[in-house]
Amino acid sequence: MQTIEIQTKSRPSTVICGDGAWTEAQTYLHEKDAFFVTDSNVFRFYGEEIKHLFPKARICVLPAGERNKNKKSLFRILDEMLAAKLHRSSCVVALGGGVIGDITGFAASLYMRGTHLVQIPTTLLSQVDSSVGGKTAIDYKNVKNVLGAFYQPERVFCDPRFLKTLPPREIKCGLGEIIKTGVLDGALGEKLLSNAPRLRDLAYLQEIVSDCIQFKAHIVELDETETAGLRKCLNLGHTTGHALELCYGRRSHGEYVMIGMWLESLIAERKGVASHEHSQWVRSLVSLVERRIPVFKNVSQCVPYALLDKKNQQADQISMYVSASYGEGRELVLPAEKYAEYLAVLEKGQ
Amino acid sequence: MQTIEIQTKSRPSTVICGDGAWTEAQTYLHEKDAFFVTDSNVFRFYGEEIKHLFPKARICVLPAGERNKNKKSLFRILDEMLAAKLHRSSCVVALGGGVIGDITGFAASLYMRGTHLVQIPTTLLSQVDSSVGGKTAIDYKNVKNVLGAFYQPERVFCDPRFLKTLPPREIKCGLGEIIKTGVLDGALGEKLLSNAPRLRDLAYLQEIVSDCIQFKAHIVELDETETAGLRKCLNLGHTTGHALELCYGRRSHGEYVMIGMWLESLIAERKGVASHEHSQWVRSLVSLVERRIPVFKNVSQCVPYALLDKKNQQADQISMYVSASYGEGRELVLPAEKYAEYLAVLEKGQ
Repeated sequence: MQTIEIQTKSRPSTVICGDGAWTEAQTYLHEKDAFFVTDSNVFRFYGEEIKHLFPKARICVLPAGERNKNKKSLFRILDEMLAAKLHRSSCVVALGGGVIGDITGFAASLYMRGTHLVQIPTTLLSQVDSSVGGKTAIDYKNVKNVLGAFYQPERVFCDPRFLKTLPPREIKCGLGEIIKTGVLDGALGEKLLSNAPRLRDLAYLQEIVSDCIQFKAHIVELDETETAGLRKCLNLGHTTGHALELCYGRRSHGEYVMIGMWLESLIAERKGVASHEHSQWVRSLVSLVERRIPVFKNVSQCVPYALLDKKNQQADQISMYVSASYGEGRELVLPAEKYAEYLAVLEKGQ
Repeated sequence: MQTIEIQTKSRPSTVICGDGAWTEAQTYLHEKDAFFVTDSNVFRFYGEEIKHLFPKARICVLPAGERNKNKKSLFRILDEMLAAKLHRSSCVVALGGGVIGDITGFAASLYMRGTHLVQIPTTLLSQVDSSVGGKTAIDYKNVKNVLGAFYQPERVFCDPRFLKTLPPREIKCGLGEIIKTGVLDGALGEKLLSNAPRLRDLAYLQEIVSDCIQFKAHIVELDETETAGLRKCLNLGHTTGHALELCYGRRSHGEYVMIGMWLESLIAERKGVASHEHSQWVRSLVSLVERRIPVFKNVSQCVPYALLDKKNQQADQISMYVSASYGEGRELVLPAEKYAEYLAVLEKGQ
């Protein structure tokens, strides 16, 4: 078990990861006025255990699925918090994947301008990425994460026990963000390439989860609210990834991010931002998990979604963060019509 | 004209107050991608001027009134921000009183996890209190300010020109918060007592506005998110004030705050927290503006509203901040039934 401290301007956040983190969570929450938020899938597996361990806690169970990361679910949580007469000193606990973490964190930030917040991520994706760093949000009117807040959880407990009940697709989704961290970190990328056969082994992934959290913690400490430009690197692959996700919505977030990294590495190469060798290296990392890039029909319909991305600063311009060389990246801004040309590559697949 | 810098952990905020602040605002906003939010009353007086000065700016006009500080208005602003394709770098401008400032600041904090924000308060209340310090919120399900965020405006421009078009009741409302600051500050309280005849004179009020902002800026710098306990002092009179406001809703916020301070000074005296002389001093400050405490029928119906207050930490307990002696205050927690007894004093008036 490992403890990672994240010191941000707003408030400190402590991540406990590895075997035993769940036991630590129980001790931490023991005397607290806890309010759990989870989804129907997680509740099916862990509902009885939660009720047994925390007989006094209230549990808000949301329908599972990415499309429920919306205003309706947010107000469902807030209404239940009000009905339960929670105070500022109550502790809201997000038990679930990225959707539950994002929406619960958002609700906790809004209720009385902020209650206590604990994240217990139960998916690989949320353990390596979304539970750490304080980004909370909902999707609204077809724009991903367009309403939200920066709100640090006081504690994050990442226990590998929860990963055992995950379907393979959820593991693949988490691997997408792990690959992203590998591209950004370089050294982690090399480690992943030389341990390719172990990427589906949960014991090995436990080590990788901690590497990813440490990398992200460092970025978040330097640029909590994405104002210094540094945190933007975490959006690698996300411009195209989010646009595909909004437009097609059948695969998981992590898969779309990998496809986004793949395409954007081609764009970086063609724009002369990255060498052919480096872009190949990015694509070889992607192919560790996403062996074949699928075919997308009528891919130009994604352009309007990409234009709605938060990172864009000007109308008709699409902004993306690309990997330029080992451990180095930069922002690339393209006119929408130019981006549409590159996007057309996805109509062929790979 | 005076410039007051507020250094908080989250980000710096600059208040420009006095004659000429509006001209400064025009210069500041000149080249910015501005999105104005105002209400129908303010728009009637200043709409044409805004359109003339900022021909490219979008203007969102909400219906006027405290009861519109709700979820519907919040999402009306957010929808218009989305329709206007605002980016993080756009500048949202709240032009209006406390309701517009609170709700617009809240929308600005949520949109893409935070856009730029400028406050141009047009009422005495919002100039002395709500535009400064970054508290934003909406009322929801009969609880005042229960959903919100701490979000500092980059600039606040307080120009006395806007006060000239205010009805006397709005001036009285602002005087309520000025009296509150006088009780907290002590020295300001004495100044107000010895300048009683000048309290309706806008030229004199300009000086007082700046005193109040300076006092509040100091508190906000020490305890931005009300976690250190210090900022709680700004809630003087608000426990009872908010409960009366939610329950009766006919008078202005400032009037209810004064009635709250009056009643809570009696409670502080009876509980032995404040001397009779000091409590008399608090009530003499209140009576500068609120000469007679009105009669409230069936006042016990306010207790459930007081129980919903954010400051409460325990069920069936009501928390309030009272003035204990010159420049000193403390928190007082009462069981609901005890509070109801004290509240009954308001059935007699004064």
